[in-house]
Amino acid sequence: MCGIFGIYNHPEASNHAYLGLYALQHRGQESAGIASSDGKQLHTYRHMGLVSEVFTRDILKGLAGRSAIGHVRYSTAGSSELKNSQPFAVDYAKGMMAIAHNGNLTNAFLIKSELESKGSIFQSNMDTEVIVHLIARSREKSFIVRTVHALKQVEGAYSLLILTEKEMVAARDPFGFRPLVLGDLKNAPVIASETCAFDLIGAKFVREIEPGEILLINEEGIKSFKPFPQREPHQCIFEFIYFARPDSFIFNHNVYEIRKSFGARLAQESPADADMVIPIPDSGFPATLGYSVQLKLPLELGMIRNHYIGRTFIEPEQRIRHFGVKIKLNPVKELLRRKKIVIVDDSIVRATTSRKIVRMFRNAGAREVNVRISSPPIIDPCYFGIDTPRKSELIASSHNVEEIQRFINANSLNYLSLEGLKKCVRGEEENFCYACFTGEYPYPFQMKFE
Amino acid sequence: MCGIFGIYNHPEASNHAYLGLYALQHRGQESAGIASSDGKQLHTYRHMGLVSEVFTRDILKGLAGRSAIGHVRYSTAGSSELKNSQPFAVDYAKGMMAIAHNGNLTNAFLIKSELESKGSIFQSNMDTEVIVHLIARSREKSFIVRTVHALKQVEGAYSLLILTEKEMVAARDPFGFRPLVLGDLKNAPVIASETCAFDLIGAKFVREIEPGEILLINEEGIKSFKPFPQREPHQCIFEFIYFARPDSFIFNHNVYEIRKSFGARLAQESPADADMVIPIPDSGFPATLGYSVQLKLPLELGMIRNHYIGRTFIEPEQRIRHFGVKIKLNPVKELLRRKKIVIVDDSIVRATTSRKIVRMFRNAGAREVNVRISSPPIIDPCYFGIDTPRKSELIASSHNVEEIQRFINANSLNYLSLEGLKKCVRGEEENFCYACFTGEYPYPFQMKFE
Amino acid sequence: MCGIFGIYNHPEASNHAYLGLYALQHRGQESAGIASSDGKQLHTYRHMGLVSEVFTRDILKGLAGRSAIGHVRYSTAGSSELKNSQPFAVDYAKGMMAIAHNGNLTNAFLIKSELESKGSIFQSNMDTEVIVHLIARSREKSFIVRTVHALKQVEGAYSLLILTEKEMVAARDPFGFRPLVLGDLKNAPVIASETCAFDLIGAKFVREIEPGEILLINEEGIKSFKPFPQREPHQCIFEFIYFARPDSFIFNHNVYEIRKSFGARLAQESPADADMVIPIPDSGFPATLGYSVQLKLPLELGMIRNHYIGRTFIEPEQRIRHFGVKIKLNPVKELLRRKKIVIVDDSIVRATTSRKIVRMFRNAGAREVNVRISSPPIIDPCYFGIDTPRKSELIASSHNVEEIQRFINANSLNYLSLEGLKKCVRGEEENFCYACFTGEYPYPFQMKFE
Amino acid sequence: MCGIFGIYNHPEASNHAYLGLYALQHRGQESAGIASSDGKQLHTYRHMGLVSEVFTRDILKGLAGRSAIGHVRYSTAGSSELKNSQPFAVDYAKGMMAIAHNGNLTNAFLIKSELESKGSIFQSNMDTEVIVHLIARSREKSFIVRTVHALKQVEGAYSLLILTEKEMVAARDPFGFRPLVLGDLKNAPVIASETCAFDLIGAKFVREIEPGEILLINEEGIKSFKPFPQREPHQCIFEFIYFARPDSFIFNHNVYEIRKSFGARLAQESPADADMVIPIPDSGFPATLGYSVQLKLPLELGMIRNHYIGRTFIEPEQRIRHFGVKIKLNPVKELLRRKKIVIVDDSIVRATTSRKIVRMFRNAGAREVNVRISSPPIIDPCYFGIDTPRKSELIASSHNVEEIQRFINANSLNYLSLEGLKKCVRGEEENFCYACFTGEYPYPFQMKFE
Repeated sequence: MCGIFGIYNHPEASNHAYLGLYALQHRGQESAGIASSDGKQLHTYRHMGLVSEVFTRDILKGLAGRSAIGHVRYSTAGSSELKNSQPFAVDYAKGMMAIAHNGNLTNAFLIKSELESKGSIFQSNMDTEVIVHLIARSREKSFIVRTVHALKQVEGAYSLLILTEKEMVAARDPFGFRPLVLGDLKNAPVIASETCAFDLIGAKFVREIEPGEILLINEEGIKSFKPFPQREPHQCIFEFIYFARPDSFIFNHNVYEIRKSFGARLAQESPADADMVIPIPDSGFPATLGYSVQLKLPLELGMIRNHYIGRTFIEPEQRIRHFGVKIKLNPVKELLRRKKIVIVDDSIVRATTSRKIVRMFRNAGAREVNVRISSPPIIDPCYFGIDTPRKSELIASSHNVEEIQRFINANSLNYLSLEGLKKCVRGEEENFCYACFTGEYPYPFQMKFE
Repeated sequence: MCGIFGIYNHPEASNHAYLGLYALQHRGQESAGIASSDGKQLHTYRHMGLVSEVFTRDILKGLAGRSAIGHVRYSTAGSSELKNSQPFAVDYAKGMMAIAHNGNLTNAFLIKSELESKGSIFQSNMDTEVIVHLIARSREKSFIVRTVHALKQVEGAYSLLILTEKEMVAARDPFGFRPLVLGDLKNAPVIASETCAFDLIGAKFVREIEPGEILLINEEGIKSFKPFPQREPHQCIFEFIYFARPDSFIFNHNVYEIRKSFGARLAQESPADADMVIPIPDSGFPATLGYSVQLKLPLELGMIRNHYIGRTFIEPEQRIRHFGVKIKLNPVKELLRRKKIVIVDDSIVRATTSRKIVRMFRNAGAREVNVRISSPPIIDPCYFGIDTPRKSELIASSHNVEEIQRFINANSLNYLSLEGLKKCVRGEEENFCYACFTGEYPYPFQMKFE
Repeated sequence: MCGIFGIYNHPEASNHAYLGLYALQHRGQESAGIASSDGKQLHTYRHMGLVSEVFTRDILKGLAGRSAIGHVRYSTAGSSELKNSQPFAVDYAKGMMAIAHNGNLTNAFLIKSELESKGSIFQSNMDTEVIVHLIARSREKSFIVRTVHALKQVEGAYSLLILTEKEMVAARDPFGFRPLVLGDLKNAPVIASETCAFDLIGAKFVREIEPGEILLINEEGIKSFKPFPQREPHQCIFEFIYFARPDSFIFNHNVYEIRKSFGARLAQESPADADMVIPIPDSGFPATLGYSVQLKLPLELGMIRNHYIGRTFIEPEQRIRHFGVKIKLNPVKELLRRKKIVIVDDSIVRATTSRKIVRMFRNAGAREVNVRISSPPIIDPCYFGIDTPRKSELIASSHNVEEIQRFINANSLNYLSLEGLKKCVRGEEENFCYACFTGEYPYPFQMKFE
Repeated sequence: MCGIFGIYNHPEASNHAYLGLYALQHRGQESAGIASSDGKQLHTYRHMGLVSEVFTRDILKGLAGRSAIGHVRYSTAGSSELKNSQPFAVDYAKGMMAIAHNGNLTNAFLIKSELESKGSIFQSNMDTEVIVHLIARSREKSFIVRTVHALKQVEGAYSLLILTEKEMVAARDPFGFRPLVLGDLKNAPVIASETCAFDLIGAKFVREIEPGEILLINEEGIKSFKPFPQREPHQCIFEFIYFARPDSFIFNHNVYEIRKSFGARLAQESPADADMVIPIPDSGFPATLGYSVQLKLPLELGMIRNHYIGRTFIEPEQRIRHFGVKIKLNPVKELLRRKKIVIVDDSIVRATTSRKIVRMFRNAGAREVNVRISSPPIIDPCYFGIDTPRKSELIASSHNVEEIQRFINANSLNYLSLEGLKKCVRGEEENFCYACFTGEYPYPFQMKFE
């Protein structure tokens, strides 16, 4: 997953890009980068690490100019290299351009092969690089038309920002998989993955950029284009379940409230007879609250999170049981002793962490541990920008709920049903992508790009 | 504030000290250090920074031996220097010793003057150094007797650990200001400021070390000494209110539960007519929950915390309003619009942060912002180990509740009463220190040590 | 200036590349990089900094495989960025390739424009990138033929190494501007800019790669190609004067000996009546020795160099006179007092350093400071890989020797004549490039590539 | 070995201390530190590393005030820890003091035992710490008298600087083992180990501080005290042979010139029939020059040094022969082939390096390798500040010249005789310490301080 941010025509463009990325840090902790334009040329800096580690005052000073785009990238195994960080900046026939992309192109591999057969060279492993090549090869006259020309050739998920010396383009794919919002900071247009980036810099939220919409931002203002045939939106429901920050407003909803409604729905579907309900920090809280309120079941913070976790952690040689989870989480024993508890988490991927958490609660004295998950079972990987493991590692792809319950050793296990999930977005249920729960992708996926 | 940890006769002594300090990181983020004994000599490493930053695998390997003590220190203005980090290790006539201290000695300045007049030199600004001098100058024969001799001369707060080549001493001052707990890891004695350190390494909690108790730990086992005239305990009630981790058990209570009872009591004393009650992350949660349950007022997570805050943060030149608080906290606007809210926080010190938080809620659309504080007004500084600012900076030392309410611009403001606070520890209310709320110190304070 | 190194089919390929680059560090201190092949794919690491700073044991371990090429790059103003470091590695239709290049292509700008007009994108500011594009666009079947096809299109200076999954190519341009030597390490072919790289790893020098020669190294051995029409060589005489290490053998000569002969020749042309002759450390020594021997004038180390110069140096606010030079050099006052001295340096570029050095000697008490330069006046910039400033900054481009003498305040100033320089390479004088002394370039320069 | 620097009453005191230490870096590369006084209190910073690495502009800014002392320390095995770095700063009854010490106290162990028996604690392993204790315990009224009182109790080598809030004291032990020079920077007194520190900052050399002399520097000016009974000086001859920088003036001589005279004397005593004489970089040059001139034997720079050696160097797994030396040095093969050579080095300690160097010359083709050493054989360790290995590791302590010649595989080996050495300082020969060549220490050594 990634986060993007852009700002046009503001005296402190890079400083604000830095802040915007900082607010979007939860969308990617692997690398961070900013490209700025001073009107004549672009300046780029990107490095592995957190936003607060990557940038110094001097580096930001070097990112001169009144426009900037930025990018944070999530750590994924195998391709965690500097060359895959963004913004990706190049020279081409018409000048310079830098691109920041959130999403995943599903036909990038095919296009790359075609481009390579025409002599193109590729320096990164990013699907994003094909967009840049397509723009550069387009013979259209204006930058915006070249960009449209390029985007018409790619399939998949993209919310992206492109910066040239003079212009900025913001685009969201026709399915609208990833969020992208437009704001305003004292008349300077700002674009971000989520509205929480606007809050930090004091910008006003204007509206969401629509699926299939492309904005051209230049000295004359903002122009909106909708060059693609209209498609049924496929906004990623997982942004609501887990990814987005609860204080953000995306896909027409406040994330906190929608997440809470998932919990309430889950309570209706799968109540529990228990002494208390406990959230798994930090993402599980809103759904747990919804669950608790719905059932009038006391909510307790029975699991405490250590917030001082550093990058590298030195384990003892003589292994401590469930060490990895213990570093982060610790149950409140006095609260749990001989109690029947329900814990609410947002999702189960491999189930190994859930298993450890259940065991921690049991060791802490809980008499009964019931597990509720505020989303349906994940049975298929995402090809549109979320970094799920391959199908064989998704426990729900090969095990039914009973088997999973046994594996994690819970007294009961219930997931929110797909119907229940859809009811929470009633009236808009056709606007979302549920492929990870159903295996029904909007179109056939071609091949993994690497 | 500081955190200390010790382990005696375990094959992975320094590794466990590292983990123990990691679990105590909330008690001090300025510096970290470990001293170990290999039976013949001590090895010490200390540095500025978080536990996970200070230690590497190689450094831990160099801290050889089967016994170790560790220390984390809180950042306080002015004396944030390496020389003031701990453990503090020295050579003296009888060998080597290292000390780790949580607390504050109130007569250190006098003793230091006396020692200096006898020719002693001081390398740090820490009051702790006087204990080491007193032990070194004592002519008693055994280490434990020299230590008792030294501790009889100092006044104030100390929970401390001393390591020599062969022995470890754990001591808690007669008033028992700071917590100190004893545990057991497969027959190896472990000592820590709080029980959460035991949980991470899988040690069992045995009991609290009592006020005025000194433990001598050596190859023969653990011996307990109570060399001081018995005093009425003065355990720091602020550990309950704010400092300790909620999953810890100290002063005969689980912190989470006692903190929750403060909130419930506060609700009884000062209910509010509101649409929802909102905790201020992260410390305010348990009291807020107590408040919410007591009044059956809906709890909402209306303020979200950004967990990726780095050490240094680059501010924009053109200042953003309330920038400092915004970096950490962001309200959930959709939840708040036109609502009457109560926010519960644990304490007010200078009131500048509270003021910014109230304003953030108002800007986010709240119609009414009522503030409840789960402790009484702080009117006097602490001389026993908590780093409160000087009296003149404590808003409640010079302003009454109404004035503070006006300053922070709240629709109402109520503190938990001292009586209410005491009721939450009914039966034990005489065992705690309330000096910061009353100005009634257990004995006259002499002079600030610097 | 840059240095390159390659090794084919050796179990410790990257380790030896590291050592080879280390020995070539004098050719470039800005960035360092290595690309290795494990037979299936390439691994690349490059970073700003010295070889000993850039690589760690872990990084070298990650550069797996039995073949490797490496590159060190000189710090030049303006384009000192990571993206311009080498080896430059890409994916293209036929697989992967990495390139390391020493030199400067004079028609790169034109080719880049053509390539861009066909839709190519450029990620670096390096002329080297065009070679990679040309290879990737070539429709020839084998890698070596594609490479020849590409190199036939470029003009200028190149000694380069290209690594693919299975093969290595070494090439030197038809004029042979930059050195490139072939060695052997226990049957593994090694290639380097200078022989000093062979000495460190214990490889044997085999022969120089000839101007216009291309070597293809693969499992079948080494094949030599000479695909270009033969040209009169233009080997860079400045490698002898200043750049190469004195212990290297390049261009058919040992650098130390040829440099010494420059000094001897200079002595014949421009003797001096002086008490002693003093070298300017470190490069000026061999020529000074030649000068001293020829005239039987006592040589003295009258100027001492501080070898502990770090990357950044903090200057006092109240500037010390000639601070920059003083940091590096200090005269031996006792030796100089009231003496007539000759100092021998290898070249004068802007003359500002020479001026400071003369002043230092005068302040140290020298009665007379005569300056001899072991090369002719530099009147024109180099377009073939040496980073000279633009013509207007070259003092000799606009001032005659008398004027320069006055500017640096020397009692006398003499340069080695061009004829004298040529006499030192008698019989081979037609094989060298003297363009920086004459302005007569081998062919017209087109445009600066940036 | 260590280097010290002090400056009194100058607006840029710490900046100049930084520069002074930089010029003295050859005297110690392990750690660096500066203590400054702003008239009211001292500020200290010290860290492991080179001067240019340890200090930043911000750190220097923090070292406020118009007076400063600094220290660089040599890396010695075992005690290379931050706590042993200097200046060593303490609080005591009369205020603050910081000390910087070059030398070694021979009765420190005894004094430490006595002090510990009186209750003193020691935080470092440095002998220097006893001086501070003795000053602090002295009941004399003025600082200078307390210092004299303390210094009268210690034996051994010390050139030292002490800084208090208002005063600076410079002292040199009665034997004058280590150098200490007085300079003047625009009326601000400056003190340094060697005059090269004055040259960098533009200070004038005033005079050497005499053996047994103590200077008190305060607002009233500089006062000289000679409180000790006069002793025959024992200035360390090894400063001339190896340690000091050639551009320094110490012990009444310019180091370069005296070093050259050692070579000339060596030539008279032990001429060689050879084609050329070669210096071992960098320290051997002046003596080689003296040798060459005396015998009219051509000098050649036949061994080239790589100046880019970093702190850590990664060796290949499959060891390269004589790797360690090769990293630093490389012979000029073309010069050496079939030649009879003499190499001149300053000293032989363990002989392992000499052995490798001889082998390198042989491998490079030399027909005959004759070795000349410009000092007598080292048969005993130094107890006065030079970090020689223990006696058993000194090859000359157990082997005669013939055996050493065989060990290093030289065709001939000659040392400068002790008489010859003394002749080079004729008239002053009684002023130097030759203990490492004779085992005759000025007084019995008591016990190694650790």
